[in-house]
Amino acid sequence: MNAIQETIQTMAIDAKKAAQKMIGLSTESKNRVLLRMADALMEQKEFIRRENEKDLESGRKKGLSNAMLDRLNLSDKVMASMINGLQEVAALPDPVGEVTEMVKRPNGIMVGRMRIPLGVIGMIYESRPNVTVDAAALCLKAGNSILLRGGSEAIHSNLALARVLQDCLAAENIDAAAIQVIPVTDREAVTYMLGLEEQIDLIIPRGGEGLIRFVAENSRIPVLKHYKGVCHVFVDETADHDMGINIVMNGKVQRPGVCNALEALLVHEKIAAGFLPKVGDALAKAGVEIRGCVKTCSLLPYAKPAADSDWGMEFLDLILAVKVVPDLDAALQHIVNYGSQHTEVIVTNSYANGQRFLREVDASAVMINASTRFSDGGQFGLGAEIGISTTKLHAYGPMGLKELTTRKFIVYGEGQVRA
Amino acid sequence: MNAIQETIQTMAIDAKKAAQKMIGLSTESKNRVLLRMADALMEQKEFIRRENEKDLESGRKKGLSNAMLDRLNLSDKVMASMINGLQEVAALPDPVGEVTEMVKRPNGIMVGRMRIPLGVIGMIYESRPNVTVDAAALCLKAGNSILLRGGSEAIHSNLALARVLQDCLAAENIDAAAIQVIPVTDREAVTYMLGLEEQIDLIIPRGGEGLIRFVAENSRIPVLKHYKGVCHVFVDETADHDMGINIVMNGKVQRPGVCNALEALLVHEKIAAGFLPKVGDALAKAGVEIRGCVKTCSLLPYAKPAADSDWGMEFLDLILAVKVVPDLDAALQHIVNYGSQHTEVIVTNSYANGQRFLREVDASAVMINASTRFSDGGQFGLGAEIGISTTKLHAYGPMGLKELTTRKFIVYGEGQVRA
Repeated sequence: MNAIQETIQTMAIDAKKAAQKMIGLSTESKNRVLLRMADALMEQKEFIRRENEKDLESGRKKGLSNAMLDRLNLSDKVMASMINGLQEVAALPDPVGEVTEMVKRPNGIMVGRMRIPLGVIGMIYESRPNVTVDAAALCLKAGNSILLRGGSEAIHSNLALARVLQDCLAAENIDAAAIQVIPVTDREAVTYMLGLEEQIDLIIPRGGEGLIRFVAENSRIPVLKHYKGVCHVFVDETADHDMGINIVMNGKVQRPGVCNALEALLVHEKIAAGFLPKVGDALAKAGVEIRGCVKTCSLLPYAKPAADSDWGMEFLDLILAVKVVPDLDAALQHIVNYGSQHTEVIVTNSYANGQRFLREVDASAVMINASTRFSDGGQFGLGAEIGISTTKLHAYGPMGLKELTTRKFIVYGEGQVRA
Repeated sequence: MNAIQETIQTMAIDAKKAAQKMIGLSTESKNRVLLRMADALMEQKEFIRRENEKDLESGRKKGLSNAMLDRLNLSDKVMASMINGLQEVAALPDPVGEVTEMVKRPNGIMVGRMRIPLGVIGMIYESRPNVTVDAAALCLKAGNSILLRGGSEAIHSNLALARVLQDCLAAENIDAAAIQVIPVTDREAVTYMLGLEEQIDLIIPRGGEGLIRFVAENSRIPVLKHYKGVCHVFVDETADHDMGINIVMNGKVQRPGVCNALEALLVHEKIAAGFLPKVGDALAKAGVEIRGCVKTCSLLPYAKPAADSDWGMEFLDLILAVKVVPDLDAALQHIVNYGSQHTEVIVTNSYANGQRFLREVDASAVMINASTRFSDGGQFGLGAEIGISTTKLHAYGPMGLKELTTRKFIVYGEGQVRA
């Protein structure tokens, strides 16, 4: 074992020990330390800014793009949002300890399920240092330890934030190993971490598809991930046209760079001639490039012909693939072929088609008459979001506090034994 | 890609297509085909027996142990239990389609969760051919396809059973690829299968620890597994002695070869002198070998001194490790050090100690005053069990039909878009 491996293994063992002690932590203690962290970030603003400046400075030297530098920057706005986030997480209900499905079995034992922390969460992320605080807050509230491995470009910021958070843990008599930033930025650190299945219960990667694939392919620990969001809206024959236009515009234009933005529009052929020019004009006016099927192009002179690769493409930009389909079945098949199991929407006034779409589409969020942009932990009422899962095990869709927990069986007996 | 890989990939792709069609399958169709399968197994008894005899014959030639041959044998009793199992699964409530946690968000959208099938389950198992039918029935009822890869020694039996089941699927117009036995028995088949993450959603291995470790270490697909059950009973200071004796005897003696059998007894030192000789005599009378700590040996002349390796050992035999501990804290720490996150029991009359044990012990089943042997899907009321999970993601403890499903978000809107 080399020095890097030894460092990380020690941290993981410490994280596991801390997690064992956190099982019995009261909601009150967890909330108190979260609020203390919010205060501490305010008080330690100058220290954090200084450390953040080191990352920004070396980023500028390395010639990082403005977008990258912007993500790195712990501006007043980002600081305020981290502080606000801590306060919000403190205000959320504690998922741990809830007992459900308690039943009395024929022999008289009572069997139920108690919600418990998962244990140790490994978070692997890229340039945004605010993830350090946001993820640590959610993991702490759910009673978990967190081992954070951020990008090398944000290392000073991440370590500074962790120091502030750890001081708060210590001040509240909670094991400071509950929140740790791995100081090693080599990729070897990630690979080694992904093999520590004895200590780490769950890995959550956040970043580009490259990082996520690397993590998924190298992890011996379960991974909750989503690669991309290729969200479709199907505007059905019976759709209200204005509603369809609103939902399409909101999905594509409101924030095109995120995973729940709209990437492809499917239109029922019976309304194509009436609906497509209206939505097309609105899109064109908003600067959206349309890549259409043959029928779309015949109706919209400004549409470009779609290449095969445009179906199923996550543009993350003002570009929309548009296809005319003969019926609901064809729309469903298109989504099977090109969807990413993220978010799929039907705009319809048909009860039967709406219900069928809801039931049959295999995606983490399926909607009738609403914007894809609602596919989000906050919008769904989960309180806060640690990520989105498009794999089906454990969690499917936006993940909140509950998804950072699991349930064990509990039994109350009176001396029963098995016959 | 070689011929083996091609075979398996084709089967997996077919399984995925079948799964997509099964999303919309009614409970009625699923139950009808399950009952038809029960009838067909009865009708095809002779065919199945002939094929099973081929496996038994080659097993005898290979010199398999009697225990192994017994596991291979599709006796009348095993056939009856498979048939009965199919009928029981047909009678279980369908988990798919249930909508829960539906709430109205401030903007008026209704957000809830709908229970859906997982997709394709890969089952990797050893010599018992009845697993083919038991697992297929549960997966089918939960709306999943299943790809079965049994041991080479049972290949004729497994293929025969699959043929009978597939004929039933076809007769009910369900894609026969919903239940497939992989005809290739090379280990390469398993390794290749474990890489098909695009097609297979979940792997469940069933067999010895060697098989399970191999699967866990080589899988790119999520695995639900348990390596072993090292279950403890802690008899607290306030325990009723007779209750303690009953629970210990039931855990150790009723069926010592299973994972929820008792492997270690912890006794509070304040009652050791009174309790240990009584339970020790009962154990000795039942032929149980006691491997005790120094104090235990001083109280029980027939106890052997425990070696370090006896703590945390899964004996699966009439052997019990026994330790005297100073208090609840020491018992909890012993379980942290040596438990396997399977099942842990406290026998106590102290409200505070019982609640603390229930809350703090990290195991998939934690019990007060009941036998470890209740840790079982059937005993817990899940209806049937596809396995036990001692990993915390997705399922922790006995897994029933619900654990073969997941939930997606559904949204009912009226044209809402995000501000």
